[in-house]
Amino acid sequence: MDYMTEKFKKLGVDTAPGQETRQNQEALPTKGEDIPGTPVDFSHGDVDAFTPIPGTLETFIEGVKIGGKQAYTEYRGKAELRKDLAQKLAAFSGAPVDAESEIILTPGTQGALFLAMGAVVGRGDKVAIIEPDYFANRKLVEFFDGELMPVQIHYNDVAHYSGLDLAGLEDAFKNGAQVFLFSNPNNPTGVIYSPDEVATIGRLAKQYDVTVIADELYSRQIFSDTLPYTHLRALPERPEKLVTIIGPSKTESLSGYRLGVAYGSADIITRMEKLQAIVSLRAGGYSQAVFKDWFAEPEGWLAERVRQHEAIRDDLLKIFRACPGCSVRTTEAGSYVFVTIPKLEVTMLQFVKLLRAQAAVTVTPGIEFGPQFTASFRMNFSQDHKAAVAAAHRIVTMIERYRA
Amino acid sequence: MDYMTEKFKKLGVDTAPGQETRQNQEALPTKGEDIPGTPVDFSHGDVDAFTPIPGTLETFIEGVKIGGKQAYTEYRGKAELRKDLAQKLAAFSGAPVDAESEIILTPGTQGALFLAMGAVVGRGDKVAIIEPDYFANRKLVEFFDGELMPVQIHYNDVAHYSGLDLAGLEDAFKNGAQVFLFSNPNNPTGVIYSPDEVATIGRLAKQYDVTVIADELYSRQIFSDTLPYTHLRALPERPEKLVTIIGPSKTESLSGYRLGVAYGSADIITRMEKLQAIVSLRAGGYSQAVFKDWFAEPEGWLAERVRQHEAIRDDLLKIFRACPGCSVRTTEAGSYVFVTIPKLEVTMLQFVKLLRAQAAVTVTPGIEFGPQFTASFRMNFSQDHKAAVAAAHRIVTMIERYRA
Repeated sequence: MDYMTEKFKKLGVDTAPGQETRQNQEALPTKGEDIPGTPVDFSHGDVDAFTPIPGTLETFIEGVKIGGKQAYTEYRGKAELRKDLAQKLAAFSGAPVDAESEIILTPGTQGALFLAMGAVVGRGDKVAIIEPDYFANRKLVEFFDGELMPVQIHYNDVAHYSGLDLAGLEDAFKNGAQVFLFSNPNNPTGVIYSPDEVATIGRLAKQYDVTVIADELYSRQIFSDTLPYTHLRALPERPEKLVTIIGPSKTESLSGYRLGVAYGSADIITRMEKLQAIVSLRAGGYSQAVFKDWFAEPEGWLAERVRQHEAIRDDLLKIFRACPGCSVRTTEAGSYVFVTIPKLEVTMLQFVKLLRAQAAVTVTPGIEFGPQFTASFRMNFSQDHKAAVAAAHRIVTMIERYRA
Repeated sequence: MDYMTEKFKKLGVDTAPGQETRQNQEALPTKGEDIPGTPVDFSHGDVDAFTPIPGTLETFIEGVKIGGKQAYTEYRGKAELRKDLAQKLAAFSGAPVDAESEIILTPGTQGALFLAMGAVVGRGDKVAIIEPDYFANRKLVEFFDGELMPVQIHYNDVAHYSGLDLAGLEDAFKNGAQVFLFSNPNNPTGVIYSPDEVATIGRLAKQYDVTVIADELYSRQIFSDTLPYTHLRALPERPEKLVTIIGPSKTESLSGYRLGVAYGSADIITRMEKLQAIVSLRAGGYSQAVFKDWFAEPEGWLAERVRQHEAIRDDLLKIFRACPGCSVRTTEAGSYVFVTIPKLEVTMLQFVKLLRAQAAVTVTPGIEFGPQFTASFRMNFSQDHKAAVAAAHRIVTMIERYRA
């Protein structure tokens, strides 16, 4: 197989969230009748159940009316918006951000992640990643011809925080990792890293001169029973080369506008802008206007949204914990649960397809987050509360039906 | 210098269109007084002078109101929009397009170009490009570690069409080019390729098994005195591996929505979707809705727009042709003129900065389109007609002032 064929073989999207309609309709070992109920797509949040920040469409329209100055911004994003966001993100993360040199606006946080990785991962570079973690992380390393160095989090062995294998992390750094990429809150488990874990990441990155990319996409949605959240960039242990990523696609339901931000080391941001110039020029000009409403939500709006998600989380945890052989860590932040299920008489990929076919439920198979997670699936519970609860019950019924 | 530092050094954006505000303010060898006049930024079209297709904002708002189904589309774009566009583009280009497998919606045509190149250019691959041609082409080859094989167009030696060096093209293919990328209409010269030139490109690509990427971004804006335009994909000589790129950012002034399309060989489109999944997930969901209004403009709208651009073109050609030592080919399609000027006592890069500083005029230096074009600059004349004419006169005044 030639180099490019092999490369793109690794970049499969068939079981990726949102792509389910493109899957082959293989014959499934179906048992029993379909289970009726409102279809729920847990592969991503439902922006009809949790709608965008109030007023964002009006802000977009104002942007269009500004005309050319809004349509054609600098590649790194419109200067006045960068200034506004630099102040907001400095306050949020607890450390200053220079609007001129340390921030870039991108098409979604996916865009930020791609540019950051493209800016720092050269061919043959070793990249430490977490298992499990966001499915694109592994693919990005492969696309840029880097070498994966997986580090585990033992999230099922601890009641709080990630259970990061700190010795494993140091081993990876010692063995030549040049880049470390991790999401905090973790996707798919919904755990966050402890102050000590984050400080150790920083200390080791400094010691071994590792570039760190911290994907903090879900860091505004912290639940009430969660221990303190830590921004690496605000610690004395902050490494020299650090980029933090965040965006309003999740908690704020603005995914349809494709907006993200990366902020951190000026040298990396400069490279990211150069890359953006050939990738997509800029985050959509009119969409950029919507950044104004972010971190400027109506009073109480965010707290209420977090409370609503926590209530859904609590119900789902109860349902899966009542299912013998199922296990699930308590989500500390973000909208994911990562459910481990007992042995079935079908494979996980078959079960995921059966869930769609028989129970009108879409979940994302665990292998998207690491090859060893064959007994788990991820659910994004940013959904209509009642529909999500009913769908979770249908999943449990299906587990019983196909239990080995 | 390490591999990544070198790579990003080549990806400079300092003199790229739209980035002028980030240039160093070096001391310039200024002569004479500032020349007053309305500032004109010829680095890109003015969407305040030529506004977006009527009704597009309303269509966008309808998209937002659709909600989740519009925000989260398949990575290759919303199915019903792909179906609509496949029909429109088949009619436009003269050959069928399969909506399911042969088209992908992207964030701008830049997005389409990046994905297409990322899908077919592996490290060490030889890529034939045209000189002069769109500035990102060369950078994309460098980013993907390809090897540039420049082929010339002798656009100043012919009255019509591009003057493509067909022997040079065949040499490049013979010497191992795996990919050929070209814009038609050509950016920056505004010439188009003759039926014979396009057929030869196809025949040679077939013969030498070369993948062709045809950037036809400006192919709807053909002037009245232009000879026939040819779509490679409609010819019997069409090569096996061909992707055509187009979008509504230019003639239709929809750049602020970041929309583009690539259509062609299913294998390449599949790879492009895999890549899009890690680059930016999808073209902005709400923005995708705006595709509906494209190729569905009010009757006469496009013809009138082309006529208005032709009138501006004619005035600019007159002004530069009256300047001794200046030369400029007649634009056949699109909104660019590529003006060659006489020897000055300052360098072209200095002259471009002096134009901004003293005459409130922004143009793009020729070296962005090929290293040898040190005596040329590009102007996008999609501007307010009167302001553009006045600005062109200021440029000529500045040429006289700094003539060697």
